[in-house]
Amino acid sequence: MYGIILAGGSGSRLWPLSRELYPKQLLKINTDKSLLEMTYLRLLNLTDEKNILSITNAKHFSDVKTQLSSISKDPLLLSEPAQKNTAPAISVSVKYLLDKGKDDVILVVPSDHLIKDEKAFKKSVENAKTLAEEGYIVTFGIKPAGAETGYGYIKSSKKNNDFSYKVEEFKEKPDKKTAEKYVKSGKYYWNSGIFMFKASVFMETLKEFAPEIYEITQEFNFTKNNQIEFTKFDKMPSISIDYAVMEKAKNIINVPVDCGWNDLGSWDAIYDINSKDKEGNVKIGAVQTENCKNSLLFSSNRLIAGVGLDDIILVETSDAILACKKDKTQDVKKVFDKLKEIKDETHLVHTTVYRPWGYYTVLNQGEGYLTKMICVSSHGQLSLQSHNFRSEHWVVLSGTARVTLDNKNYILKPGSSIDIPVKVKHSLGNPYKEELKIIEVQKGDKLVEEDIIRYKDIYGRVKA
Amino acid sequence: MYGIILAGGSGSRLWPLSRELYPKQLLKINTDKSLLEMTYLRLLNLTDEKNILSITNAKHFSDVKTQLSSISKDPLLLSEPAQKNTAPAISVSVKYLLDKGKDDVILVVPSDHLIKDEKAFKKSVENAKTLAEEGYIVTFGIKPAGAETGYGYIKSSKKNNDFSYKVEEFKEKPDKKTAEKYVKSGKYYWNSGIFMFKASVFMETLKEFAPEIYEITQEFNFTKNNQIEFTKFDKMPSISIDYAVMEKAKNIINVPVDCGWNDLGSWDAIYDINSKDKEGNVKIGAVQTENCKNSLLFSSNRLIAGVGLDDIILVETSDAILACKKDKTQDVKKVFDKLKEIKDETHLVHTTVYRPWGYYTVLNQGEGYLTKMICVSSHGQLSLQSHNFRSEHWVVLSGTARVTLDNKNYILKPGSSIDIPVKVKHSLGNPYKEELKIIEVQKGDKLVEEDIIRYKDIYGRVKA
Repeated sequence: MYGIILAGGSGSRLWPLSRELYPKQLLKINTDKSLLEMTYLRLLNLTDEKNILSITNAKHFSDVKTQLSSISKDPLLLSEPAQKNTAPAISVSVKYLLDKGKDDVILVVPSDHLIKDEKAFKKSVENAKTLAEEGYIVTFGIKPAGAETGYGYIKSSKKNNDFSYKVEEFKEKPDKKTAEKYVKSGKYYWNSGIFMFKASVFMETLKEFAPEIYEITQEFNFTKNNQIEFTKFDKMPSISIDYAVMEKAKNIINVPVDCGWNDLGSWDAIYDINSKDKEGNVKIGAVQTENCKNSLLFSSNRLIAGVGLDDIILVETSDAILACKKDKTQDVKKVFDKLKEIKDETHLVHTTVYRPWGYYTVLNQGEGYLTKMICVSSHGQLSLQSHNFRSEHWVVLSGTARVTLDNKNYILKPGSSIDIPVKVKHSLGNPYKEELKIIEVQKGDKLVEEDIIRYKDIYGRVKA
Repeated sequence: MYGIILAGGSGSRLWPLSRELYPKQLLKINTDKSLLEMTYLRLLNLTDEKNILSITNAKHFSDVKTQLSSISKDPLLLSEPAQKNTAPAISVSVKYLLDKGKDDVILVVPSDHLIKDEKAFKKSVENAKTLAEEGYIVTFGIKPAGAETGYGYIKSSKKNNDFSYKVEEFKEKPDKKTAEKYVKSGKYYWNSGIFMFKASVFMETLKEFAPEIYEITQEFNFTKNNQIEFTKFDKMPSISIDYAVMEKAKNIINVPVDCGWNDLGSWDAIYDINSKDKEGNVKIGAVQTENCKNSLLFSSNRLIAGVGLDDIILVETSDAILACKKDKTQDVKKVFDKLKEIKDETHLVHTTVYRPWGYYTVLNQGEGYLTKMICVSSHGQLSLQSHNFRSEHWVVLSGTARVTLDNKNYILKPGSSIDIPVKVKHSLGNPYKEELKIIEVQKGDKLVEEDIIRYKDIYGRVKA
């Protein structure tokens, strides 16, 4: 069995915890594993790591790779050079597996959903496998826990066998009234976005109902080239797999699964999955409350205090705070879009940014200065670089730094510091076992990440 | 005419903007002048600065002095060595003025109220003065703008003359129902806490109704000693002037004043005094809203976003965030008290702390480090000191620093830095005209303000 993990995502729904460059699947919400990592581990429970292919878009590639590499030595990972929704992503992934492997059954899963009951999920997948081998495209329907308007629904009431139902119709996200009707009828399931099919069956179905995507998909040859070429991929229409294939195909079957599934599509879902105090409050981090009920208070850094709140979501991050009425969490996306429109960077990035060599956190920025905590992993190495508009000042907190400054090398222990003047070539590395932590003080009138001239990349290769 | 400014205050009501060590009167709420500064300027409009005495408690003395010194070269300022409510504070202040001056009329004002119509206030004071000179104790009653439960009330319905009414009764803070009854009757005024009387009249009244306070007050002799001695002052009962004198005295008269008075006693008052957008929202600082109404969003530093909020107060400061239902702002004090109880420092201080030499702001604190922005005023000088548990690293952003390190002097220009190792004596000064700004990185396992050994004070005097 193969697995395909869809690891794209826009990062708008769980803002300010998620960002455009740090979407939901990368988040560790109240746990030590991200949703992506949990998804990968879930598939490892079903098949070997060489059979698990993840696909993400270029802007998340580095972060996705870093997380998967914490579990697998050499995770299979494709980068989409353009954002084209799920149909093109799944199609090229299936083509990749066909080119590299055999015509086997494939399980397709989103990377940003929560599944509480892994056993129940595994059981359903095993059941579904027999149907996929018979030539069905299996969709996993979730018994609705309420009249949600944020999900698509599948009408499916006639039994096929012990564990599966025939699919009558796919329904787009309904309004509240329609959703209530669906749930009351008992004939509808939530569309989880999880699918299973044989590779060749998918390709045939794609050819029949989405010939345009099929044709472009055939242009890729992953035996010759491991990359998804932009010029080919960019010709793909931007369309979801539901719309392109599932809603039209005749060989669809529904395997209902009761596995504590939640797509964590908005802040009220985060409220739902967490345990509550007796007033119905979820408190995470440094929180004080006075006479609050049914509210979520989520602190990442600073103290948050709630007084007299009812049905309120309050989320604190280093650089942005959200307060939201619980039944309006779908509108968080509107704030996100507005910030994007006015080019406020809080929609885009966190103050913590992960890099192949470790990570940095912007601690504070003011007139003429910016402070960062830089953490360089064991054997991590930053590129040789210089800056035209800022000086940098490094103070070693822990570990040992190897600094190259103007062609001289320095070894810095905790408590020592070094000044990097404007325009002087420098690099920072940690050739040791212990993690290196330094505080960087940037001084200058123009303090932007873009003020950087790279001379060698992190492998020491001279830039062309 | 004399003025007494009562500049104590607990800092709990407008938390997290106010703190125990930075109470309401010191705040500059959406203006460039603090409430204290505005109060001082208001009195300067009525009398000469040598006639204005401020009294505050010891822990706010330095901050109060700094602010008043921005207006007056040598402001008269008494420090209370213990917190004893308003009766002792007013009594010793009156004694001070009698000892130092003559038996004149005194206007007593709180330092943390807002008065929008200075002209109307001045007119009422001038009217009141004639009555005070006749031997009355004048209280300034405010025509109620609503059935507030946070104020004391004065029953006063019978005219005395054109601009004054007889006082029938002082009433403590009522419940909602009683407050509504008061307002409906038209016979009640809010007790503003502003008073006017002749010094000798006050002393006679004090002698009659609060003999204990009177006796202790007589022990002070400000012709010999400018300080309020702790051993004497600490014998005072902790009691308000209303309770000790006003509610009992017979010679009280009410001069109603319509001057846009607001005691800013809670966050909903801050909402009330600010201008609103068409949805009734007050937005201060970096704020985004989506479908919010009747809410206050107050950002000091970071972006705050509100979605679907109604009647919510949201306040962001460097180290604490408050979200509060608007009709529950009186309960903010409970959070403050809880934080105090659990020794969470966010009740006590801001991340910005003012000192005689300038100020510092804690930018960020993490495991093993703390970063500060230190701003040293022109000719500001910090004490000679050392630290047992931390090294410090200073990067000059602007201005010029004179650093003494291990008996050597260094002059540092912007972009240069210096390391202060653990246990080494050092001091920082700015003997120049331009303000000095540095970033300090502290490194150590124990990073507390108390880790400081002072060898000389800021005047260069060797410590005993």
